[in-house]
This record gives sequence, structure tokens and C-alpha cells, in this order.
Amino acid sequence: MKPVLNQIVDGLAVPPIPEVQEWARGYNGAVGPLIDLSQAVPGYPPPPELLNWLGEQASSPAMMGYGRIEGESVLRNAYANHVSQFYQARVLPEQTHITSGCNQAFIASAIAVAGAGDTVLMTNPRYFNHATTLSMLGINTAYVDCDPENSFLPDIETLREAVKTAKAFALVSPNNPTGSVYPSALLSEIFEVCQQAGTWLILDETYRDFMPVSQRHNLLRQRQWVDGLIQLYSFSKSFCIPGQRLGAIVAAEPVVAAIAKVMDNIQICAPRAVQAAIAQAIDPLADWQAENLQEIERRSAAMNRVFADLPRWKISSMGAYFAYVRHPFDGQNSAEIARELAQVAGISCLPGTYFGENQEAYLRLAFANVDVGTIEGLGARLKAFRGPA
Amino acid sequence: MKPVLNQIVDGLAVPPIPEVQEWARGYNGAVGPLIDLSQAVPGYPPPPELLNWLGEQASSPAMMGYGRIEGESVLRNAYANHVSQFYQARVLPEQTHITSGCNQAFIASAIAVAGAGDTVLMTNPRYFNHATTLSMLGINTAYVDCDPENSFLPDIETLREAVKTAKAFALVSPNNPTGSVYPSALLSEIFEVCQQAGTWLILDETYRDFMPVSQRHNLLRQRQWVDGLIQLYSFSKSFCIPGQRLGAIVAAEPVVAAIAKVMDNIQICAPRAVQAAIAQAIDPLADWQAENLQEIERRSAAMNRVFADLPRWKISSMGAYFAYVRHPFDGQNSAEIARELAQVAGISCLPGTYFGENQEAYLRLAFANVDVGTIEGLGARLKAFRGPA
Repeated sequence: MKPVLNQIVDGLAVPPIPEVQEWARGYNGAVGPLIDLSQAVPGYPPPPELLNWLGEQASSPAMMGYGRIEGESVLRNAYANHVSQFYQARVLPEQTHITSGCNQAFIASAIAVAGAGDTVLMTNPRYFNHATTLSMLGINTAYVDCDPENSFLPDIETLREAVKTAKAFALVSPNNPTGSVYPSALLSEIFEVCQQAGTWLILDETYRDFMPVSQRHNLLRQRQWVDGLIQLYSFSKSFCIPGQRLGAIVAAEPVVAAIAKVMDNIQICAPRAVQAAIAQAIDPLADWQAENLQEIERRSAAMNRVFADLPRWKISSMGAYFAYVRHPFDGQNSAEIARELAQVAGISCLPGTYFGENQEAYLRLAFANVDVGTIEGLGARLKAFRGPA
Repeated sequence: MKPVLNQIVDGLAVPPIPEVQEWARGYNGAVGPLIDLSQAVPGYPPPPELLNWLGEQASSPAMMGYGRIEGESVLRNAYANHVSQFYQARVLPEQTHITSGCNQAFIASAIAVAGAGDTVLMTNPRYFNHATTLSMLGINTAYVDCDPENSFLPDIETLREAVKTAKAFALVSPNNPTGSVYPSALLSEIFEVCQQAGTWLILDETYRDFMPVSQRHNLLRQRQWVDGLIQLYSFSKSFCIPGQRLGAIVAAEPVVAAIAKVMDNIQICAPRAVQAAIAQAIDPLADWQAENLQEIERRSAAMNRVFADLPRWKISSMGAYFAYVRHPFDGQNSAEIARELAQVAGISCLPGTYFGENQEAYLRLAFANVDVGTIEGLGARLKAFRGPA
């Protein structure tokens, strides 16, 4: 008798990124090199000094043994100091936990607060891996719809009702896929609503280094944050090292203790050498990161220029890293459009349908992946797509 | 209202290794340097050429982007080739999946085949992280008791009944904690019993490079292995790189596809640079590994000599890497003994109680961690422990 797979996992959609990459492989180069706006991957290399530190640490005998579950002390110290400066707050090293990427930060946090049969609330649209992660754990998922006319931000009264039955509300800001940065006042309201309902707020800040300084929230300056906030971060995007897999969590010490139990089961500890290298890099690379932020703003401006000249296409929302664009083909599925864009126009992007229900009209463009010149090249390709537009 | 943690995680025991390391910190060095036989960590460094490859790959710009979920092609090819040679079988690269350590290989495999409410069977004693991993996922755990008089190997008829209600049987060979290597014929019987019941066999082979060549099983030479075997491996022990976190799975292609869905949610892909470095290392380091195996055998012989001279202490089972030792203090808990051994005798080891029920009489000694001279020093310390023995 052949044993059978876990039916929940068997029923999960295949991971979307490889599927989209497969579409792009079907493009023959007819209108120029592929413009890859699919997976969020910085379109510039990490700086040479970071590569050197990575190499030095990875070849150091001192990094070969097991490390502390919660993370290397040098990185927990450096990261706590960094977050404290970033948000003008006071986060302690003991309130941090290092993970192997931000998806791992999410699954470890999710397991720490919710079990099979519990419910975790998300926005719609949502980041697809959050949904599949929860489903594969038998955790129920629920959604609060976000209004395209309001930059895809959730309505606070709708949220107030929805969080009542949820163990946690998982939120991404700056948002994936819409790019929207949640205003500080709204985040404070959301946290208060969660607190009233006894619901954790899991705030995924993978893209926060790509938002203007003026848009930083003040959640961590509120004394009560330790009662219910779990904040996630990724080193992949702003240090251009997704292949190294490194993320971090900020939470109260009892939450960090619970996450450590989960992490011990998932992989004992995050790989050590990259932790030591990033601990070296955080301060010296601050200026380099600030320059990248300015470059992202130039790319964002280029996106606005290009789409101003494409009256049938509309940027529905845009912010750090992503633009969420409404295509002009009413009633047609964005999955079909995205496939055709990849294969015919050499533009690889993600269809809105990957991000939840009723997203057939949208495409996610990771514009931060490519330079201004490449963005400017989008105009002609989109105009020519399916004949003159 | 303060939100509450997942009660299952809150109720899990704290990870055992840090607790044991804490005991060892209480040792004042009175009878010589600490002899650390606790966590399995090879007592010799990785070879210089491996450190060089790790450094080169970790500083290579080509390794900084996202990788393929299932693993780098170079490593899947090299590992499939290695396993095929090791077992004189034919394993394809498509039948492999790379993970960030063997604990991750276990959790990904467990989720792929079992969900909350299902039951996974283990032996008693068992590897503690297997038990906590399943519990934290809401998967029920069941045990088949292993007889100390039979090298802690399970009885096949007992197993035949027990697997009937289990989605999977998780087995560690060479065993952790007992060191026992499951004979090939017994493994075949176990696999057949699992097949009859429609139960997966998850075989964790973390320590297989430390068993004599003559003890290799022939499971992978049986045509039916693809119908129900999931084999796990760790690069940590035999390459001396636990801090790099790298493991691998062998399973049929549909199982690899399910595991890829799980891995995408856990961390997208294993870190890339170490994958490329190990792909370079597998063939050239084969001789170095063979020498290490001989050294482990010398250490095993030293253990036998030492305990032959300690009539009140008994090696209940021993094999690759671990000895499972019966202490002479009948009726006393091995957790107490282990703590006192660490703090007074400077011998750090794990109490049997960490490995399941009715293990109060046992201690796990990871003898492969230390050299022959150090092992010989155990005799005097154990003789002096709690007065002359």
C-alpha cells in the first residue's frame, strides 16, 4: 500500500516564482533583453567590502561549530542598535531573534502564536507565502479586503470586527504587492485595535529600507509594543544578499523564548558566518544604503513618467519597491496578461491573482529591480503590447 | 488585553543543549579541562581546502541572488552521485532536495506527509527534536519501545502493530542517542512492514559516515524504495561544518515536489554558497572522511577499554558517534547525574531522560567529539565520581 502525502501540502499551489520564471524562459528576445520585474531582487550588486566580509567569515574556523539558537551575539547587538536608531526607540539585543530569511521569521512567529485550528488574519491582497505557510500548518486564514481607492489600506472599523476572532493579524508594510507604506497613525490605530482584541500584530518590514525616512512609524516608541507586536525584517533586499538567507525578529523576551523553541526545531540556528559578516556591515554600509534609497526614488519617479504616457494603464498604488498596476484589459485575468507580457513583450512580472481574490485586474511590478533606463524602456513595450494602445 | 502564545509551544520543554551547556559553565576546572561529550560536534576542524572553498563561494557575486528551492544543481548532482556510490544504488538528482541542516530536512519531510491530528511513530528512546517538532505542529506522537538487551532495536512484530495507525515511522540509524546501527536485514523488514501499512519510513542518517562500510544497508537498491522511503542526511558532522547548516533529502520525485512547497514557505531555499562549496568538496574529501572514520573506530575502541575498567558503569549500546551508558546509581535520575558529572567531574553529556520515558538509567556520551587521550582521561574521573567506585 503506497503511503499518501499530506493532503494539505499536496493541495497547495506550486510556488509562484518558478512558474513565472518558466514563462520568461519562453521569451525569444524579439523586442530586447528581458525586463525582470518578477521576484524582488535588487538590480545592483552588494558592495565589494561586504563580499570580502562574507568570504572571511565563511572561511573562519570559529564559525564552523553550532551557534546560539537566537543568533550570534554580535549581530543581535548590532541589529538592536540599528533598529533603535532607525525608529528612535530602545530595542534590546534580548528582544531580537535572528532567522534564515524573513519567510523563516514569519513561520517561526506564526507557530509561536498560533496552532492548527486557530485563525490568522491577513489583508487582501496579501503576500502569497504568508497564506501558504499558514495553510500548510493547518492554521485558518481570514482576510480583510483593502480598497484600491484608498491605496489598498484596510478600513479600521472593518478591521476592528475582523481581528476579534484572530490570534494574529499579519501585515506587510511597505506592502507586498501594492508598495503602499502604512502611515504611522494608521499603524498605531491597527495596533490598538489588535490590543483591544488580544490579537498579535505581526508586522513584516522586509522592504522598510526602501521607504523615505519621513514615513517611519513610531510603534516601537510606544511602551505597549512589547505586549503584542512582532516585527519581521530581511537583510536580503537592502544588502543585496537573498542567496545568503538572513532575517530578524523584534519581539518581547517571552516571545523570543517561544520563537527560539520553534527555531531549534526548524534548523537549530541560522547559518553563522553571514551573521558575523552583517554585524560588521550594518554601520559602515549605512551611507551606501542611503544612496540606494535615493536611487529607488529615482526609479519610482521614472515609473510615474512612463505610466503618465500610458493612459490605458494605471498605477493603482506604488511605494517602496513595488508598483501595483491596473492593466487595460477589463475582464481578462492578470495571470494570462502576465504570461503574455513575459512571452511576447519580454516583461516579467507577477499577476495580481497570486496575491488573493479579485486581483484579476492587477500586476505587481518590482520596479526596484531595474535601473531608470530599463524602466523607461517599458513604455514602448507596453504601448506595442497587443497592438497600439 | 495581552495576546497569548501558542500553548503547545509554550508547553514545550526548553531546548536541551543550552541547558546542558549551562551546567558545564558551573564547572570550576578542578579535575582538568571540561570533557564535552554533549552536543555532537566533531572534535577536529574541517580541512583547509574546504574552508577556502567556503570563503570563495561566500564572496562570489554569483551566489548572492535567490537560488532554486530544491537546491543548487551542482550539489544535487554531486549528492545524488555520492549517495548512489555509497549505497551502490541509482539515485537521481531529481530525487534529492537540499535543506538548511538535517533538522530542517526532518520538519520539511514531516509536514510533507503528516498534518495536525495525524500520528507519527518513533522509537523510544528517540531524538528529542523529532518529538518536539511533531508536537509543535500538532502531530500526535507514538512510540515503540526498544529493548536495551537487544541494542535498543525495535521488535518487528511490535512495530507491525504500531505502524498501522501512523502516517510515518521516523527512525534514526546510526541511532541517536544509542549509537546502534540498524542491520540491513532489519531495515528491510521495517520498510516492508511500513509498506504493508501504507506508512512512510523517514530514515534519518545524520551519522552514517561514522559507521563501518560493512554496515551499509541496501534499502536504496530495492526497486520499491521510491514508494515510501524518505532518507535524511546532514553535511554537518562528516564535513565538520554544523555552523553552516546543510542537509539533504532523498525521496521520490512527487515527494521532492511536496517538500519543495514546504521549503518555499520555510525559507525559500537553503543558503547557496555553502551548497556550491560542498559540491566541490564531496569527491576530493572522500579520503579525508575515510581517515576520520578510522579515527572514530579508534575512539570507540578507547571507550571499550575505559569502561572495561569501570565495572559499575556499563556501555549498553555503542556504534557510530554515540555510546549509551548505564550509570551505576540505581533509582537515581540521569538528569541529576549528568548535571553533577558536568559540575563536579567536568564531563558534559546528555541524560537519557531527554530522549524519552524510562531512560533515567542512561547517559548519552558523544565520544566522537574528543580524541583518544581525552577518552582515556574519562576513567579516572568516573572512578572518583561520588567517591571511589
